[in-house]
Amino acid sequence: MQIFLLCTIFFTFFITINAWYYGRAEPNAWTTGGVWPLPWQITYFPGNHTVNPSLFRLQAKTPGCDIIDKAIQRYRTLAFPGFNAATYQGDQGTLTSIIINVASSCPTGVPTFDMDESYSLSVTSANGIGIIQANQVWGALRAIETFSHLVFLPKDNVYMVRTANVTDKARFPWRGIMVDTSRHFIPVGTLLQNLDLMAQNKMNVFHWHIVDSEAFPYPSIRYPDITAKGAYSPKHQYTVDDVKKVIDYARLRGIRVVAEFDTPGHTGSWGYGVPNLVSQCYDSNGKPSILPNILDPTLQANLDFLKGFFGEALQMFPDEYMHFGGDEVLEDMTDCWYNNPQVRARMQQLGVGSDTGKLLNYYWQKFFDIIDSVRNGTKKIVWQEVLDQNVPQENTIAHVWKGSTLSEVYSEMYNVTKAGHYAILSSCWYLNYIKYGADWGYVNEENMRDRGMYYQCDPQGFPGDQTQKAAIWGEFVDATNLIDRLWPRASAVAERLWSDPALTQSADAAWPRLHEFRCRLVYRGFRVQTINDPDYCPYEWDEKYQEL
Amino acid sequence: MQIFLLCTIFFTFFITINAWYYGRAEPNAWTTGGVWPLPWQITYFPGNHTVNPSLFRLQAKTPGCDIIDKAIQRYRTLAFPGFNAATYQGDQGTLTSIIINVASSCPTGVPTFDMDESYSLSVTSANGIGIIQANQVWGALRAIETFSHLVFLPKDNVYMVRTANVTDKARFPWRGIMVDTSRHFIPVGTLLQNLDLMAQNKMNVFHWHIVDSEAFPYPSIRYPDITAKGAYSPKHQYTVDDVKKVIDYARLRGIRVVAEFDTPGHTGSWGYGVPNLVSQCYDSNGKPSILPNILDPTLQANLDFLKGFFGEALQMFPDEYMHFGGDEVLEDMTDCWYNNPQVRARMQQLGVGSDTGKLLNYYWQKFFDIIDSVRNGTKKIVWQEVLDQNVPQENTIAHVWKGSTLSEVYSEMYNVTKAGHYAILSSCWYLNYIKYGADWGYVNEENMRDRGMYYQCDPQGFPGDQTQKAAIWGEFVDATNLIDRLWPRASAVAERLWSDPALTQSADAAWPRLHEFRCRLVYRGFRVQTINDPDYCPYEWDEKYQEL
Repeated sequence: MQIFLLCTIFFTFFITINAWYYGRAEPNAWTTGGVWPLPWQITYFPGNHTVNPSLFRLQAKTPGCDIIDKAIQRYRTLAFPGFNAATYQGDQGTLTSIIINVASSCPTGVPTFDMDESYSLSVTSANGIGIIQANQVWGALRAIETFSHLVFLPKDNVYMVRTANVTDKARFPWRGIMVDTSRHFIPVGTLLQNLDLMAQNKMNVFHWHIVDSEAFPYPSIRYPDITAKGAYSPKHQYTVDDVKKVIDYARLRGIRVVAEFDTPGHTGSWGYGVPNLVSQCYDSNGKPSILPNILDPTLQANLDFLKGFFGEALQMFPDEYMHFGGDEVLEDMTDCWYNNPQVRARMQQLGVGSDTGKLLNYYWQKFFDIIDSVRNGTKKIVWQEVLDQNVPQENTIAHVWKGSTLSEVYSEMYNVTKAGHYAILSSCWYLNYIKYGADWGYVNEENMRDRGMYYQCDPQGFPGDQTQKAAIWGEFVDATNLIDRLWPRASAVAERLWSDPALTQSADAAWPRLHEFRCRLVYRGFRVQTINDPDYCPYEWDEKYQEL
Repeated sequence: MQIFLLCTIFFTFFITINAWYYGRAEPNAWTTGGVWPLPWQITYFPGNHTVNPSLFRLQAKTPGCDIIDKAIQRYRTLAFPGFNAATYQGDQGTLTSIIINVASSCPTGVPTFDMDESYSLSVTSANGIGIIQANQVWGALRAIETFSHLVFLPKDNVYMVRTANVTDKARFPWRGIMVDTSRHFIPVGTLLQNLDLMAQNKMNVFHWHIVDSEAFPYPSIRYPDITAKGAYSPKHQYTVDDVKKVIDYARLRGIRVVAEFDTPGHTGSWGYGVPNLVSQCYDSNGKPSILPNILDPTLQANLDFLKGFFGEALQMFPDEYMHFGGDEVLEDMTDCWYNNPQVRARMQQLGVGSDTGKLLNYYWQKFFDIIDSVRNGTKKIVWQEVLDQNVPQENTIAHVWKGSTLSEVYSEMYNVTKAGHYAILSSCWYLNYIKYGADWGYVNEENMRDRGMYYQCDPQGFPGDQTQKAAIWGEFVDATNLIDRLWPRASAVAERLWSDPALTQSADAAWPRLHEFRCRLVYRGFRVQTINDPDYCPYEWDEKYQEL
């Protein structure tokens, strides 16, 4: 059956890639019911179901769980975009319902690292009733999304469903997207839309890089000045309700929200509202140099502040993990610690002499103690250089962002995991590899279009043993506010992180399914960019206009 | 006064660029009333007007001209985005109206190459009545847009207008944007939104690259099969009403629509509906090679077809100019003419022997005769290689797209104009120079961010005499369907083509105004990308969402 599947993929690919090569992509979208990201096992059977969206029902075997009940409501539209009940002329449908059967009880809290996203889905039954089976609600959410991909439109306002059996699970437990809301403030509606797109790509971690040097949109209740003075403007702040809304919206979609408060560097915007929190910076002649952008750990008041601040933040963000940054501190350590006479005097008192490296170690030691004291058991993520700098490492997770070619990336991953760390890989998946044209994955080295390495990069592609490789997770990084650029590039990463690597080696083979999925997202109402050049969707995005 | 203006610009720039450099762009948007593109003469006076958008009126001195009347309606919203009459708490306004005085009568037809876009605008009068003075309605449209840029919001729902005198005109008579609707079909609403953005950037030529090898969305009435079989699908065709709507929408905004029907190459999609129009292609061994993509001019039936087809097309598009393509034919000339036995036999009969260059010359001679016979006086534009290939040149305009560095571009321009041609420059302004980050213009060679050459490139930057330089026009080329990527990059080109070059040398100086203008467009409802990294607007774009 796998051979059959592979042949189908190959044949589809053969037709479409040729059509594409010669300039006319066939409208394969909405005519195949292909699933993105590719399930670990999917078997298609001959014959399709008809379905009448007015009569069809997704049904929880045990109703009353908000996560499932609301998903059922959402997918009434998501599964059948463009449906018009008034003009519907199809039949009653041979598929009438899908029963959703979840083994464990409805979670009241947010999803956690060990969430079980596996599921099975069967729409093969002759009685017109399909079945979703999952251990946890999170698997059921993924199953419903998969079901919605089996739907296709043979013509306008007519819906069919592929007859198929699916058994599926996540390859990596951490499939994230980092969004920076500091350099450019991103209003809540856009963040929520991004969560919708993440869920529809089966991604499960929203890494919220919420503050940085430039601005402080995070709403602190205990320290209102840090927000009032650190945000770009009163319009460029989140409210506590906004943060709660994001966390809840994410929870309903099986997505964890992991906040990042980058310290001790990148803290310029923290300093506007908290006196003496960041230290003044000087060049080697004692003249003012760069803007203050690093915490001053030599003042006890600052350590007290951190305890108060993170006591609040770790309540606001219930996820077990939090990201504490730690990148790019070297220049600041020289100018704002070493060259600052007051800081240097206090360094002597602390017994670190003039060694800023020792002060950095002192900082992390104190900082992690503080974190443990305000919420014991917090899992701590830091950017990789914190570990490169040999600061205290026990149980911290390294976020790897270095390496600009595949072999450099693989060598970074090898080293980090060799040292015994869990690691989140992002090096391959920075949005700044964006290129003109189709850049989500390249066909081969000889191909005249360099289509980028988003799809090509495999987090376990480095040489190393299974223990090392098991320690890897993955995350896409968007440091702009251009969420419309992010998709469908991040979709390529979503498949890399979800699917069986043996079945997803080639961007060529992925292309027709990704094209179809992109068209599906467009018809659902998301302005997602094209993946090919040229191509077309059965239903194109258009703008509204006023005749004047 | 010019010194004063320059100082103001310099001071504004000094403050903002520093703020930006250190990571916190101040919200200069909506607090300065800066104009984009920069007028040739603008004098600001101390003190601002207040304005009550409910009471304020733009008034035509002679009402009844649809172009002005509809503009007045549009700018009720465009000039005061976000206005809420119900919650307005401002005063009656010290500026109560602007009288629009146009010297010549209302044109019933479309704008033409020699349209006069000059105007003056004064909002200095003590009696609260401003004045727009223009020779033609087109100048009045530009004046109204300029007025709308003098409006700013000191706080929410409060509007003020800078006190200023403006005298302005276009630097180049042709300020175009090319959009390709073949490789990716672009629905009408998106084309119309693009026309709105063009008008708000004072651009005046929509170069509609409507068909190409991939697809034929142009609606021919006389040859319905060419559309039915050449378009991607019935959903990927324009109707005649669509084309009329685009032309009329453009006319109301002072924009010409210049269609391009690229021949004799790039015609693959023409061939699906017209038997024998494009010839079969073979390699040197006589085996089928590339897909047919070049017209066969050796058949009289094809020349007859061209006469019928362009007889219709030149009625559909009333502009005096039409673009006939002519690029990238060499491979097709070999494979589909020289290597095609039937074509080669007919070449003998035509007396061009085996010389495909001569056949190309024959084609253009016949083709231009046909164009003259169906609409005498048509101005013919071709891509530069048609002239490079020494085909008949009289009165044709060269569209220059070669050259990938500034010096290469300038050398192309020098050669083309030296040969006595009018020329449209596009080499600098291809969207495929898109980069990560701010890429619309670079500060200087030493700057670590390469911000691209969109702003830097000056169409008259090449060495040459005034006659040569006077023959140049400019056009931005978007060969994707990503109109949201186009802006505000095309805005950089808009200023280059409209404004006094002496006042617009530096992307640094342009930056604060372009930032403000981009924020204005966002608040007007256009999803236009950021120009800086980091930055923010007083009113950010957000997506709508449903709580579920």
